[in-house]
Amino acid sequence: MSYTERNSLSPEITIADYLFHRLKQLHVETIFGLPGEFNMPLLDRLYNIPGLKWAGNANELNATYAADGYARLKGLGCIITTFGVGELSAINGIAGAFAEHVGVLHVVGMPPTSAQTKQLLLHHTLGNGDYRVFHRMANDVSFYSRIINDTDLCSNEVDKCIELAYLKQKPVYLGVPVNQVNLKVNSAKLNKELRFRVLKNNLDMENEAINLILKKIYTCESPAIVVDACVNRQDTVKETEQFIRLTNFPVFVTPMGKGSIDENIPTFGGVFSGSISSPNVREVVDFADFVIVIGSLLTEFSTSAFHFFYKSKNCVLLFDDCVRFKGSIYPDLFLKPLMKNILSRLDPGKISFRPTSDCNNPMIVPKSKPSDDQLLRQEWVWHEFSHWFQEGDIIITELGTSSFGINQIRFPSHTKGISQALWGSSGYSMGSCLGACFATLESQSASTSTRQRVILFIGDGAFQITMQEISTMIRWNLTPYIFLLNNQGYSIDRFLHHRKNTTLYDVQQWNYLSFFKVFGATDYETRKIVTLGDLRQMLGNEDFSRADRIRMAEIMLPSMDVPKAIVDKWLQEKEKDHIIPGEQLDNTIHDDSPASLEPERKKSKRVV
Amino acid sequence: MSYTERNSLSPEITIADYLFHRLKQLHVETIFGLPGEFNMPLLDRLYNIPGLKWAGNANELNATYAADGYARLKGLGCIITTFGVGELSAINGIAGAFAEHVGVLHVVGMPPTSAQTKQLLLHHTLGNGDYRVFHRMANDVSFYSRIINDTDLCSNEVDKCIELAYLKQKPVYLGVPVNQVNLKVNSAKLNKELRFRVLKNNLDMENEAINLILKKIYTCESPAIVVDACVNRQDTVKETEQFIRLTNFPVFVTPMGKGSIDENIPTFGGVFSGSISSPNVREVVDFADFVIVIGSLLTEFSTSAFHFFYKSKNCVLLFDDCVRFKGSIYPDLFLKPLMKNILSRLDPGKISFRPTSDCNNPMIVPKSKPSDDQLLRQEWVWHEFSHWFQEGDIIITELGTSSFGINQIRFPSHTKGISQALWGSSGYSMGSCLGACFATLESQSASTSTRQRVILFIGDGAFQITMQEISTMIRWNLTPYIFLLNNQGYSIDRFLHHRKNTTLYDVQQWNYLSFFKVFGATDYETRKIVTLGDLRQMLGNEDFSRADRIRMAEIMLPSMDVPKAIVDKWLQEKEKDHIIPGEQLDNTIHDDSPASLEPERKKSKRVV
Repeated sequence: MSYTERNSLSPEITIADYLFHRLKQLHVETIFGLPGEFNMPLLDRLYNIPGLKWAGNANELNATYAADGYARLKGLGCIITTFGVGELSAINGIAGAFAEHVGVLHVVGMPPTSAQTKQLLLHHTLGNGDYRVFHRMANDVSFYSRIINDTDLCSNEVDKCIELAYLKQKPVYLGVPVNQVNLKVNSAKLNKELRFRVLKNNLDMENEAINLILKKIYTCESPAIVVDACVNRQDTVKETEQFIRLTNFPVFVTPMGKGSIDENIPTFGGVFSGSISSPNVREVVDFADFVIVIGSLLTEFSTSAFHFFYKSKNCVLLFDDCVRFKGSIYPDLFLKPLMKNILSRLDPGKISFRPTSDCNNPMIVPKSKPSDDQLLRQEWVWHEFSHWFQEGDIIITELGTSSFGINQIRFPSHTKGISQALWGSSGYSMGSCLGACFATLESQSASTSTRQRVILFIGDGAFQITMQEISTMIRWNLTPYIFLLNNQGYSIDRFLHHRKNTTLYDVQQWNYLSFFKVFGATDYETRKIVTLGDLRQMLGNEDFSRADRIRMAEIMLPSMDVPKAIVDKWLQEKEKDHIIPGEQLDNTIHDDSPASLEPERKKSKRVV
Repeated sequence: MSYTERNSLSPEITIADYLFHRLKQLHVETIFGLPGEFNMPLLDRLYNIPGLKWAGNANELNATYAADGYARLKGLGCIITTFGVGELSAINGIAGAFAEHVGVLHVVGMPPTSAQTKQLLLHHTLGNGDYRVFHRMANDVSFYSRIINDTDLCSNEVDKCIELAYLKQKPVYLGVPVNQVNLKVNSAKLNKELRFRVLKNNLDMENEAINLILKKIYTCESPAIVVDACVNRQDTVKETEQFIRLTNFPVFVTPMGKGSIDENIPTFGGVFSGSISSPNVREVVDFADFVIVIGSLLTEFSTSAFHFFYKSKNCVLLFDDCVRFKGSIYPDLFLKPLMKNILSRLDPGKISFRPTSDCNNPMIVPKSKPSDDQLLRQEWVWHEFSHWFQEGDIIITELGTSSFGINQIRFPSHTKGISQALWGSSGYSMGSCLGACFATLESQSASTSTRQRVILFIGDGAFQITMQEISTMIRWNLTPYIFLLNNQGYSIDRFLHHRKNTTLYDVQQWNYLSFFKVFGATDYETRKIVTLGDLRQMLGNEDFSRADRIRMAEIMLPSMDVPKAIVDKWLQEKEKDHIIPGEQLDNTIHDDSPASLEPERKKSKRVV
């Protein structure tokens, strides 16, 4: 039975219905965004499609983050905004999806074509008759863009937009003028599947690249595999895991690749994050005689926190759509078919490398075993959580101390990690968490009795930027865990710019645990976590560990306390720059002994 | 004593200090924004300038709205964001300032010049080495843009950016790479004032235009003056008021001009808002034989709610920088000097028009006088507030039912109104209110014992988009009135798109009155207003009327209740389209009798 028959569709349907049916075919069941003057006719159509729902976000930027988080798990997300005000509010989120290779379809409800042609002055315009300005701006952060025209080909355009967003894992912009929403198109086209994952590689080119790669694989003496973001984006996780198991090469993940592969593979060695990688990681990656980077997104990258690049001269980079090796580029080699073909030709018997047991000790454990009455510090917090995570968890971390902390610990198998490491827009993780909640719920079979857990770690500074999206979670009875790391502001910046006496990094102290009630939740749990004992008690609680209601824990941390990796980095810099510690910073970060916590303890008490 | 002497400045100061001193000279004392990786060195300098403060907003979009609201009262506002993530989060607010002619300087902290030249991949980039992309996007919504270069002329560039933002009342973009922050410049230039308000008009051109205008003024029989937004933006309020008093012509304001001139001038006739103006306003403006539009920003404008244009063929439009009359344009005639010269040449004795008493009955009063136990409706709410407003009030309305409601009532003298009528970005008013609070506080003399009142009207839908900025108000002990019109969602859209049975326009119901406590306020007042008696009691309370603490009142309104102007408009459309009311809409809007409130009464009770 064809799709149109199953769904009892008329031979002619509106282009809006066509768009929404296409999304439904790809299991995009939740659409994000806000209503506005020029997208309402479109949203009216959405309400007609059984199985689709309109999330109804609190604001557009949050909605884009949600579509991004959703897409990272389902391969495609969709946000609908209104012309001008709506789409520009969303554009930072779209730029993030562009930077980080996430397939987001951005549908924009536009003024009628006639108004555009006549340059009428409408609401939500700049008042200068320029109707193309927002489309032009979107082009800079979109892989492709199109505005629906009144032609027979318009359903082709819709198809192309969706295909490209999915295939290229980049944002695509689709403008729909209000007068075109009900344009009739042939529904039969829905019976033909979209062209996904059928990318074929150039065989000659591929053979040449695979020969080179296999030769290195067979002969290298100290290899390393690095798994980067595009493994997940290009749906190549299984192939990558098989490759790792067959070669037995030590494997590392980049911060953007963390949470994509099984970290319980015996040769898993932790996170490679350039200059702040732990010494045992750097030793393997930096001194390898062959590094194969699978799903490479970036080769060089800098933040004030760390520098990331591959030192090895013998580095082969498998990007989403090409291979780079020693200055040569092999274009149009797509990751998934390439990996399949490498696997089919790989003969493990020819590999000379034999793994040692050394590489399998990747994670940082606290030096001391502090007692329950101890006030919290980052290094202990992450260690405790490492035992609480379980298979199937989705773990989302905000850029800041959380994203560094999470890299210290090993995930159970079949967990997924989400973090916006490159674009790094503060507040992203909250919206992304909403999207992840919808995605996991839709992907779970109806028979499963327990919900998959979606776990968010977010600092107080970032929380303040986007926290109204908790309301949308409550509205839809979603049940994430929100772990709010309260360190009284933007701690990572406060630390790295080592200023102790400025209010620049402070944020207003909120009663964070009241938000569920304020946003109208009735079934929820909140906890304030001050001591290590509080944390252990919470994580040991069976009820707490079941994702059956929305939960928030406010974890009180000293304002200058950051994960070890950042401290190490800062100490390196300090040594280099001959900064005198006393002038710049509290003593707390130089000394690991409990005594050094005294000043911070007072601070924590004040805010408790 | 020169500026540098008074401030004990060294002969050489950093370009960052130069920028901040220039802002200080213009009484821009509060800078809005958030810290980020690439703007922190700049913010460090800001903290060194006595008399300047860093607001520390909750997010960038809100910060831009705040800078916009601040600028509408002080002529110039400034926001500082960080490269990429920060500036793109702000860009919708910048576009609003561009559309509505507001002088906002957007300073963006950028990566070091060297990284840009080498196309290094940094945090907050798109990962493609394109460092100009955000600057390029900003150009579409900025009057001028510049990035600080290492040359002797860079202080000239800073001056030019500030001058243009101020003079043109448009956003200007100024990029400051982190490595340029401490670039040394000569401080003596600060002793030379910036070139503002010295625009001279072309005398011949001006004479020709004034001759034409005077001829019409002297001979017209049914004239009308329309005051639009640029009267306020170009600091021409006094000249305009004098012109109105001298001519005795009937005067109207556009929605964007509302709150700029004294509405107690005897010939004031209310708001001209095109197709939804009240009949007595349309009668005068549409059938005038001479309409002079002062400070014109728009001549034609449409929203789904109304169409705005001047019907009169004898319409002279005084824009900010030119005059248009019957298809001719007189370029480079600037509003303020033009108005001054019209006034100097105007001989009121030659005017043949004599005002009748008819025009002075502009405001809508409710048909009935409902009793105290009546549940609220929009028409009564605005009427009650009209008696509560007082001289000096700043009245901010969100686009939505509030902005229509406010046009029904007459402001006391010396009040100012703020509304983003053209750009119409939901949530704008909350950020704008923050900016207005700072601006009024800074403009008030220290000796004044009572604070000037800043009064915000915002719907619940818009509130949810930007409400975290209340936290910034609390942090700074600002004391606005926040009147939250709770009509359970986006009522204006719900009404105009006349759908009753969709959740599209609903928002999650929040416990709005809890936010002050959640955001850490200690000195505040909240009220829930359900009946007309509640409203009257509140507005009659003397304590309540003093702006000595932050206050919020949640005003409960039926979800399909909108101001009269919108109902009229809808009825017009309905008649035109032959829509059968029963199919589309609750009965409530067709019937003014109290009985029609019954279904809504139940609804209100549910949420109370």
